[in-house]
Amino acid sequence: MRSGQLDQTFAALADPTRRAILARLAGGEAGVMQLAKPFRMSQPGISKHLKVLERAGLIVRGRRAQSRPCRLQARPLKDVAEWTERYRRYWEQSFERLDAYLVRLQRKERNHARKSTK
Amino acid sequence: MRSGQLDQTFAALADPTRRAILARLAGGEAGVMQLAKPFRMSQPGISKHLKVLERAGLIVRGRRAQSRPCRLQARPLKDVAEWTERYRRYWEQSFERLDAYLVRLQRKERNHARKSTK
Repeated sequence: MRSGQLDQTFAALADPTRRAILARLAGGEAGVMQLAKPFRMSQPGISKHLKVLERAGLIVRGRRAQSRPCRLQARPLKDVAEWTERYRRYWEQSFERLDAYLVRLQRKERNHARKSTK
Repeated sequence: MRSGQLDQTFAALADPTRRAILARLAGGEAGVMQLAKPFRMSQPGISKHLKVLERAGLIVRGRRAQSRPCRLQARPLKDVAEWTERYRRYWEQSFERLDAYLVRLQRKERNHARKSTK
């Protein structure tokens, strides 16, 4: 996994419109016009986002002159998943700690409630 | 999962030094000086990266005046993992297609080799 590739992938994903374009393309290929519609964005605006996604290898564009339909390429996301997976035990630990803290808090509150009803 | 939070997380991860800092902190908390050393980077340079990671909620910094040790907070990475996971079947499909293509290619080459040795 090359570091530069990961940089590009993460940077491309750091935008809600670009993530929404990927979600749309997961349902099938689409042209710029079709992609621009739901975002209330100009075609040049969408084209800029498509260029970022294309450079990151997250989409490929067809050669058909007018429409140049876009297709999802999910392979770079495999690297993202693998990179992220290394940290799973850390977030699981942090949720376990939170759970333990909440259990202690509930116990304390129950004890407090018992004492005050005595 | 808020979209703005994901934007910040992905943007913070789009840099090799910041990813290396997270990897270092996975081994235990560290101060700015300790973090700066292996990167041959000035302390202000590292501090900038730490600010980005802190804003994204990927690290927390202690209150001890001088060192303000940094600690990994992996929770935002859970959202990254969940977002990415939705695309798993797409990258798995693309690798299956590549496998199928390579099998066809090998078969073709074997047939070609057989014909030329007849």
